[in-house]
Amino acid sequence: MKNILDKNELNSLKNCPLFNDVSIEEITRNVINVGWYKKNYCKNSIVLDLKDDFKGIAILLSGEITVNIFYENGDRLPLRYIKPSEVFGLSYFLSSDNNETLTFITNTTCNVLIINEDSLLKLLKSSSIILQNCLNYMNNRIRFLISKIIFFNLSNNQQKVCHFLLNECSKASSKNCCLNLPKTTLCEYLGIGRTSFYRELNVLAKKNAIKMNNNGNITIHPEKLIDILKGKYS
Amino acid sequence: MKNILDKNELNSLKNCPLFNDVSIEEITRNVINVGWYKKNYCKNSIVLDLKDDFKGIAILLSGEITVNIFYENGDRLPLRYIKPSEVFGLSYFLSSDNNETLTFITNTTCNVLIINEDSLLKLLKSSSIILQNCLNYMNNRIRFLISKIIFFNLSNNQQKVCHFLLNECSKASSKNCCLNLPKTTLCEYLGIGRTSFYRELNVLAKKNAIKMNNNGNITIHPEKLIDILKGKYS
Repeated sequence: MKNILDKNELNSLKNCPLFNDVSIEEITRNVINVGWYKKNYCKNSIVLDLKDDFKGIAILLSGEITVNIFYENGDRLPLRYIKPSEVFGLSYFLSSDNNETLTFITNTTCNVLIINEDSLLKLLKSSSIILQNCLNYMNNRIRFLISKIIFFNLSNNQQKVCHFLLNECSKASSKNCCLNLPKTTLCEYLGIGRTSFYRELNVLAKKNAIKMNNNGNITIHPEKLIDILKGKYS
Repeated sequence: MKNILDKNELNSLKNCPLFNDVSIEEITRNVINVGWYKKNYCKNSIVLDLKDDFKGIAILLSGEITVNIFYENGDRLPLRYIKPSEVFGLSYFLSSDNNETLTFITNTTCNVLIINEDSLLKLLKSSSIILQNCLNYMNNRIRFLISKIIFFNLSNNQQKVCHFLLNECSKASSKNCCLNLPKTTLCEYLGIGRTSFYRELNVLAKKNAIKMNNNGNITIHPEKLIDILKGKYS
């Protein structure tokens, strides 16, 4: 737990959604004022362990983390992947019970900045921009979780793949979508097996809803994918 | 759109999570200062319609609303039920795109107070308590959505019913749980048919994990339900 931020770490903070439109000088002044600490984690460790009785938020300075839901029977559902500059642990912030169900596991060695609850509240009161960024961020988390619920309730793998491709395509604002997660990670994320995933891609290609290019990119025909989702063309 | 709040309406605001520990005088002063409006809706209307280009939040003063997700193929997934004093429409607040997927439909005639985005930001800056309440509320929504994701990913109806009963039981802090939603609403909420729901209850009763009492209440044996969820006793 060192209390100094180097240039790379400050850069990660600069790109953090909490500090949109805030200068590095202001970040340093504001964050140093409110108090925080850094923590290093080895690969495959649990971050923000419940046993630490943690309350606050964390920002990933370097490394990669998977957010998981673990079920009583041992099943694991990966919910999202955290990259440097991202905020996480919001569900611990301001929560009155310890009944937490998300588990943060490091995929690499990780360097994490932790701001506890009191400090975060002080930070939000000290700056209108940071407050608005924080509300915005929480709001994006709400929207992300709603989109996950929509996704998980789709009735079959074909619909899941269609929905996923349309989403990727709208994020890229282009009909040419490049799947930039490793295939295994992607299947795990979609909650479907690798074989099923490729079968569905092939079915969609045969229906001319997508075209798989030699470079691994996929060209998308959004109207056809929407038709398939609507059940017009199953 | 009248700009006066009567006693009942003020009472609904008083019980709104945004105004926890805030006096009626302060609520009146703060809310009136920032600007808001009221809107009445008939039964079965859509509240906060996208076409209104709405940005902000809403508080239900009277009536009941269902929050729905509609799928491209017409399927409907009810996500939650809004009772008086509850806040809703957070996913419209601060959002930069119009790609909204929640539909709020009135179950009765409804009276809604609407605070637009600028006014809400002003309100949050004007009071530390309201700010903390708002963050707390957003946080609870995040936790609610995570719990929904956990629920929707359970693999079968028996696990869904177990999970639901354990949740009801922990909310009530008692082993005697009373299912206080109408049975049809309950099944719709759980996303399983009425027949399947009763079949699962009977199976759980036979396994001595629950006991159905004559008054409609259900006594729960949490350890047995957890064992069933763990797959120890399927």
